[in-house]
Amino acid sequence: MPELRQNIATKEWVIIAPERARRPNEYARRAGPPPEPQPTWDPSCPFCPGREEELTLIRHEVPGPDGTWQVRIVANRYPALSAEAPAGRLTSGFFRSSGGFGVHDVVIESPVHNLTTALLPDEEIALLLGAFRDRGRQLATDDRLRQAVFFKNHGPFAGTSVGHPHCQLAALPVVPAHVRARLEEAMRYHDEHGSCVFCDMWRQELTAGARVLVENEGCVAFVPFAALSPFHIWIIPKTHRPLFTSATDQELGELASVLRLVLLKIHHGLADPSYNFVIRMAPFPYERVPWFHWYVSIVPRVSRVAGFELGSGMYINPSLPEDSARFLRDLEV
Amino acid sequence: MPELRQNIATKEWVIIAPERARRPNEYARRAGPPPEPQPTWDPSCPFCPGREEELTLIRHEVPGPDGTWQVRIVANRYPALSAEAPAGRLTSGFFRSSGGFGVHDVVIESPVHNLTTALLPDEEIALLLGAFRDRGRQLATDDRLRQAVFFKNHGPFAGTSVGHPHCQLAALPVVPAHVRARLEEAMRYHDEHGSCVFCDMWRQELTAGARVLVENEGCVAFVPFAALSPFHIWIIPKTHRPLFTSATDQELGELASVLRLVLLKIHHGLADPSYNFVIRMAPFPYERVPWFHWYVSIVPRVSRVAGFELGSGMYINPSLPEDSARFLRDLEV
Repeated sequence: MPELRQNIATKEWVIIAPERARRPNEYARRAGPPPEPQPTWDPSCPFCPGREEELTLIRHEVPGPDGTWQVRIVANRYPALSAEAPAGRLTSGFFRSSGGFGVHDVVIESPVHNLTTALLPDEEIALLLGAFRDRGRQLATDDRLRQAVFFKNHGPFAGTSVGHPHCQLAALPVVPAHVRARLEEAMRYHDEHGSCVFCDMWRQELTAGARVLVENEGCVAFVPFAALSPFHIWIIPKTHRPLFTSATDQELGELASVLRLVLLKIHHGLADPSYNFVIRMAPFPYERVPWFHWYVSIVPRVSRVAGFELGSGMYINPSLPEDSARFLRDLEV
Repeated sequence: MPELRQNIATKEWVIIAPERARRPNEYARRAGPPPEPQPTWDPSCPFCPGREEELTLIRHEVPGPDGTWQVRIVANRYPALSAEAPAGRLTSGFFRSSGGFGVHDVVIESPVHNLTTALLPDEEIALLLGAFRDRGRQLATDDRLRQAVFFKNHGPFAGTSVGHPHCQLAALPVVPAHVRARLEEAMRYHDEHGSCVFCDMWRQELTAGARVLVENEGCVAFVPFAALSPFHIWIIPKTHRPLFTSATDQELGELASVLRLVLLKIHHGLADPSYNFVIRMAPFPYERVPWFHWYVSIVPRVSRVAGFELGSGMYINPSLPEDSARFLRDLEV
């Protein structure tokens, strides 16, 4: 029998329809044949070391051993937003527009071409997260920017064709309607209960246990009760902070260790599927609100979004969240 | 320079980034090679005439000439929701769920296997829309159902592998958060202006002109000012009605003619791309509200959604809506 579940933080309903489920190894098969082996350095790759003509684009760098770099943040060569565009409203009234001012960076996760985040050691993932945070802190000082979005597209079904391990960072001059809706729901929960819905959620998920993948001192990774798709995962840090950019090195170190383990389980258990991850956080001015909380959402691209999702905004998840969680939890990596 | 635009009805911001644009014929090329020619009748197709074992699944039928059928609505054999599931809340508190009660039908648009909606005559599209509406009216009498979603997945990138022309209809026991957000925005607009934002929008788009594709007595088709993706199209009926299920035969006839022309332009101009269309409407109990309005949204699947869209809920449209509109408007079909 199908069941509807509601995520109490976002208030989104999802249809859990396990009759339509595949076994986990069938999801793996849908990912297609494994990619061709790649070299550690590719002279034609724009993100490999040695492209000195691109140095003017560098926004932030984490040094590596021997005077090299370990993580490099560069301006996107095909940016969706531009630092040269105006920041204010262009038109108001019925047809509203605003200048396309903003930042769109690429975060090169490693100098090594043929790695992927899941295969980096904890320390390098911590450096990557630290670079994300530090660049975010820089951007937060610009009052024209309201919201940062940190995200990764991995694999062709997740929207990237570049093999070199990289993520992206966008900073927007507006708060998207989608983010505003989540802020409002979290604020209403806080009004009602006097607590942060995300703080409550990681505790409730730990108590329930069935959907937890891994936990350490700093954070909890779980398949949400109302997961939108098979193997949809949230990682919530235990320290209440609305903004990712407020996280300490210690907290990022804890996250790096959980994130690596989760990505490694997905990598092995689902045959290196395409996936997206995003770091969700409050807008910059909400640094101290008691009702919002940053977290990581990981979405393996093992099922397709179609007209139903487009029309209703609801998702159909053919996999029982408890089953997805058990499969990944029990997987030895 | 990129620009941000806001849809005043949904309050969604979109990034219009024409520097990232392709020419329309390049979008067509991304659709892949044309499909193999198909027969008019395929004995292995579950939707072709002659599958008498499926007759128990028939929910509604529009007769064709000579005792045959022209449009047939059948129960989905792999339904996301079930008429046998319970309708009420199963659990409340932190982890909320509800029975998976609901309806999930397939609408077979024509007995002819190798047609597609764009190639049906106006009269047959009107019959199809009429069948949609009549089945929706039946469902509206069930108080356990709150919201209907009418949609079509066409082609592999839009989520279907069945070639026979068909759409789907789902009726839900909840109002999705996404729909609720749109209802609230439309209600606020009505509070502010005393008019329906969709009634205002079709008039404003007709006045502006640059994004209009086609207009007749009954409706206006246009690329919205804040179109979410290339060739994203809205068709708004001129008569104010919150529910599609309230539309008259006359109104559906006018819509059929505009819908066919728009789909035919997409079919020829973009080389039969994958696309979704959805009919958006208010929940069943909102039949008479002055502030919401049903309409059709068509989304050709010529660009991919990735981590940015997932993380922000915002879209990046690499095509200027005025350019998309001009291309389709000027195309002779």
